[in-house]
Amino acid sequence: MTKLVTAGVILIGDELLSGRTQDTNLGMIARWLDPLGVTVGEARIVSDDADTIRETVKSFSQRFDYVFTTGGIGPTHDDITADCIAAAFGLGIDEREDALAILRPIYEGRDFNAARRRMARIPDGASLIANPVSGAPGFQTKNVFTLAGVPRIMKAMLADVEHRIEGGAKLFSRTVESQGIGEGDAAAPLAAIEAGHAGVSIGSYPYFKDGVHGANFVARSRDLAVLEKAEAALRVMVKQLGGVELK
Amino acid sequence: MTKLVTAGVILIGDELLSGRTQDTNLGMIARWLDPLGVTVGEARIVSDDADTIRETVKSFSQRFDYVFTTGGIGPTHDDITADCIAAAFGLGIDEREDALAILRPIYEGRDFNAARRRMARIPDGASLIANPVSGAPGFQTKNVFTLAGVPRIMKAMLADVEHRIEGGAKLFSRTVESQGIGEGDAAAPLAAIEAGHAGVSIGSYPYFKDGVHGANFVARSRDLAVLEKAEAALRVMVKQLGGVELK
Repeated sequence: MTKLVTAGVILIGDELLSGRTQDTNLGMIARWLDPLGVTVGEARIVSDDADTIRETVKSFSQRFDYVFTTGGIGPTHDDITADCIAAAFGLGIDEREDALAILRPIYEGRDFNAARRRMARIPDGASLIANPVSGAPGFQTKNVFTLAGVPRIMKAMLADVEHRIEGGAKLFSRTVESQGIGEGDAAAPLAAIEAGHAGVSIGSYPYFKDGVHGANFVARSRDLAVLEKAEAALRVMVKQLGGVELK
Repeated sequence: MTKLVTAGVILIGDELLSGRTQDTNLGMIARWLDPLGVTVGEARIVSDDADTIRETVKSFSQRFDYVFTTGGIGPTHDDITADCIAAAFGLGIDEREDALAILRPIYEGRDFNAARRRMARIPDGASLIANPVSGAPGFQTKNVFTLAGVPRIMKAMLADVEHRIEGGAKLFSRTVESQGIGEGDAAAPLAAIEAGHAGVSIGSYPYFKDGVHGANFVARSRDLAVLEKAEAALRVMVKQLGGVELK
């Protein structure tokens, strides 16, 4: 069996915790990692607090094969991610010439002030991650990728991360959508199907929409052949329970 | 100064980490807590893994005044939250008569089987939280509130939580939206405004939308009088930087 490769995601910013901004970066990273054979094991949403960011980076870097951080790499006083990453690994940090060289042309004719130069503060030994949208680079420090918080920029940066990821066995999934089935009726057969198909995990997601109730079942496995057997068993179960299969 | 009251939020479910489902519960809980004077300090999105759920509940229960968990309290094999909460506090857990009494009428005429009775497994000493949508109750164990994962049900359960929250000083916020200002130009004055107004924290959120760039500034404080002075200073700053104030 191929190696299981995991990632941890750290979403940084008070605005995510206050409910002012709805995060979408986690889902974007997870769906992007999926075909690379990397599974997100945990995500944390932390405030702009140096101690918390540093300690979370430190522990995630040890627990997961890859770590992604989003947010806190802009020019303002609340952008402290780069310094926290450096502190997490005991590295020095300063304005770096390779990053300054990217930023200077962007601010030509405008004030390339201390705040903007702050975006060139990169931990010692980190490699830059290209930002084709607004210029200011992200960076990779050991197994930690530090990306922008703005979703459009974050997404664009992933293009320069892909070649650095050594994926594992792809996790396949099959979804059986059904209508008119109570989760409580499906529970026992679901557990039996999961137990009968080694390496398959099955999630059950009930819904109630437009006056209609039902449940969707998602089977996941790294073994496609076994997964397809489990999927077939789920479809038989839906029929036996008198439900309608939607897809 | 009134007490600072904090909450931790634990969002449970593989589907949130795979990018299949977009969480909206965190924002809903945060915006609901805000007028009660409770600030979310951290949120974690964890998989359906017993050890992780148990340890996260244990540490959050100590770190925060209140803890909210969402997800994993249904009838299927992947619904393990109740058992994890019991384990976190070293409590026994079993089907409880008060919860069974709520569920029995719901399943009258249908099969009130072991899976459905599973939703009556409540940690010893926990008090129930009413679920006016689908019946199966949430529960409160010490300072931890265990709620459903389905947003509509989760939201309805909060009505039976509100009276259990002893809030602190309300955190007020003021947003100044601006257009045509570079964050790099605002950085220094922003830091000065934050430093000049004790107890005020200022966040800067750049955007680029429909070809127009700008930045929104959010000032937050528990002292409304000082906050309003900071807001006025932000508006002056926007004008001085040649930006357009949007609201």
